[in-house]
Amino acid sequence: MDQNENNETDQTTIPPCCLKARAYSPDAELEANVHATVVSGWFSEHQSSSDKVGKRMYFNNPMWPGEAHSLEVEKILFKERSKYQEVLVFESATYGKVLVLDGILQLTERDEFAYQEMIAHLPLCSIKSPKNVLVVGGGDGGVLREVARHTSVELIDICEIDQMVIDVSKKFFPELAVGFEDPRVHLHVQDALEFIKNVPKGKYDAVIVDSSDPVGPAQELVERPFFEMIASALRPGGVLCNMAESMWLHTHLINDMISACRDVFKGSVRYAWASVPTYPSGVIGFILCSTEGPPVDFRVPVNPIESLEGAIKNQSEPRFYNSQIHRAAFALPSFVRKQVSCL
Amino acid sequence: MDQNENNETDQTTIPPCCLKARAYSPDAELEANVHATVVSGWFSEHQSSSDKVGKRMYFNNPMWPGEAHSLEVEKILFKERSKYQEVLVFESATYGKVLVLDGILQLTERDEFAYQEMIAHLPLCSIKSPKNVLVVGGGDGGVLREVARHTSVELIDICEIDQMVIDVSKKFFPELAVGFEDPRVHLHVQDALEFIKNVPKGKYDAVIVDSSDPVGPAQELVERPFFEMIASALRPGGVLCNMAESMWLHTHLINDMISACRDVFKGSVRYAWASVPTYPSGVIGFILCSTEGPPVDFRVPVNPIESLEGAIKNQSEPRFYNSQIHRAAFALPSFVRKQVSCL
Repeated sequence: MDQNENNETDQTTIPPCCLKARAYSPDAELEANVHATVVSGWFSEHQSSSDKVGKRMYFNNPMWPGEAHSLEVEKILFKERSKYQEVLVFESATYGKVLVLDGILQLTERDEFAYQEMIAHLPLCSIKSPKNVLVVGGGDGGVLREVARHTSVELIDICEIDQMVIDVSKKFFPELAVGFEDPRVHLHVQDALEFIKNVPKGKYDAVIVDSSDPVGPAQELVERPFFEMIASALRPGGVLCNMAESMWLHTHLINDMISACRDVFKGSVRYAWASVPTYPSGVIGFILCSTEGPPVDFRVPVNPIESLEGAIKNQSEPRFYNSQIHRAAFALPSFVRKQVSCL
Repeated sequence: MDQNENNETDQTTIPPCCLKARAYSPDAELEANVHATVVSGWFSEHQSSSDKVGKRMYFNNPMWPGEAHSLEVEKILFKERSKYQEVLVFESATYGKVLVLDGILQLTERDEFAYQEMIAHLPLCSIKSPKNVLVVGGGDGGVLREVARHTSVELIDICEIDQMVIDVSKKFFPELAVGFEDPRVHLHVQDALEFIKNVPKGKYDAVIVDSSDPVGPAQELVERPFFEMIASALRPGGVLCNMAESMWLHTHLINDMISACRDVFKGSVRYAWASVPTYPSGVIGFILCSTEGPPVDFRVPVNPIESLEGAIKNQSEPRFYNSQIHRAAFALPSFVRKQVSCL
């Protein structure tokens, strides 16, 4: 195998993820980029077209080099570029409908519940009677659907930057977008940093950051100034739950995030994880933080979902999360304990 | 996309996994089969060559249709057909060396420890002072390496059917094959059913079944007669740990296995799982059973690895397993509790 093939600068041999880093705009290139993620009836994160001799495929994403998860595509339902990103929806052969942003798989109908339930209930079941909740990102509505199970909650603000994600979810993912129908939900389509810096101090009991990977526009959502704004928007003893990548692939990034959180949040800081088959390495992690005030032990669900009367919402009950899973999510493999020094 | 493409009977369009079901022997076909798993520098479970019009790729494995995990291949190190199966070893770009049997990924150097540690320590840390242990399968030696951490163990029998797996492991995976060097290990290269039916009743404290997927020759290792022989080979209150697929993909199979185990084993029967990125859906499960006798609560590691003096073996300590992970492994998502009726 000729390794020099990788060094070609011809655009057809560059993974789409790398093209994104350049300033480019022609429609033709965008079209090629969207197409590139679906080749020969299969979607991969990221798979470009074949190279000039038609033999070598590229799946390389800088976040998980050397591997790819692929889903068989039945039909492409939507592909368009919003002001912020490329939005792709397809019907897969065995995972239901799939949402992809900038070539990265965001959710599938078959396993989305694991992620949505964990990112919502890990923080909300760790404190008693949460009332005011902010969701950052989460434009598909899935996190809202889960937050709405908590009858103590009176206000659910959601700040999503991309209207197209919301529209696409309402059209193709009604089981997620149902979250927007709850009367407690207030939608703010705007940049999260702009939104949160104007929030009155101590307004929220819980903030849930359901962002995309920290490359490109979401980069500033894993940095210290953003965490400081969140800490200020939380009441004393309020909690943050932040999507925090894979313990198998991104321990450096997790280390950096936890280190920044430890500086900013004066209560507890914990890492938890869950199994989500269609995310890279099959897991996704969460960083949970609390502000100074009444102490929070995230490992103990003091507000157990099994006791919530509203937990069974629209005839559907949680499919992944339960109090046993809550406790188990904080058990970390030995290599994680070792590599993430500040845990 | 023309669904009829899938119905072609031409061999080039049939995934290699389906070809295996036929009686075939020509070397040319075997060669095509091995090649088919590595296309354009990537390994997939199972990817055949392109179809006649050169556009459609197949990754379909009947155990996980519609999806595939792929690893970038640096170099193929070994490929040969043993008496029982095709054995492939390659150097991957980011997961170290990889062992593949009959097109199914068995282990990678990067994440093998999670599986080996869990399948060995879940049973051995659930009982006090295990002395006699049988490993079925596990010809790579990884499970032996983990069993050998237990200083109470006096005898480790291993029954592996395929000498080529052992030889290949000794050549390419020294960190796993080191398990064979322990003087307590006694190797039996033979069919597991033949071996176990001649074992004196009540000989073992623990049996660990590290088999391949239950399609083809390993099929009988998940059926009732095999479980009956194991139960007979175990002492009262002895334990079995059996590889038991993915809770995301194979709940029917898990149901069947647990149901058979409940009939045969009169002690406890439990399901546990672990995160292993390179296995389908990113998880692997284990069924743990105990025979009638002193009761075993698998969820409680009464023989904690942290207290074992010999646990740090050859300067290496467990990288995944610890007592917290042991307890957490038995926490099941709500959909698993619901779908696996006999849990």
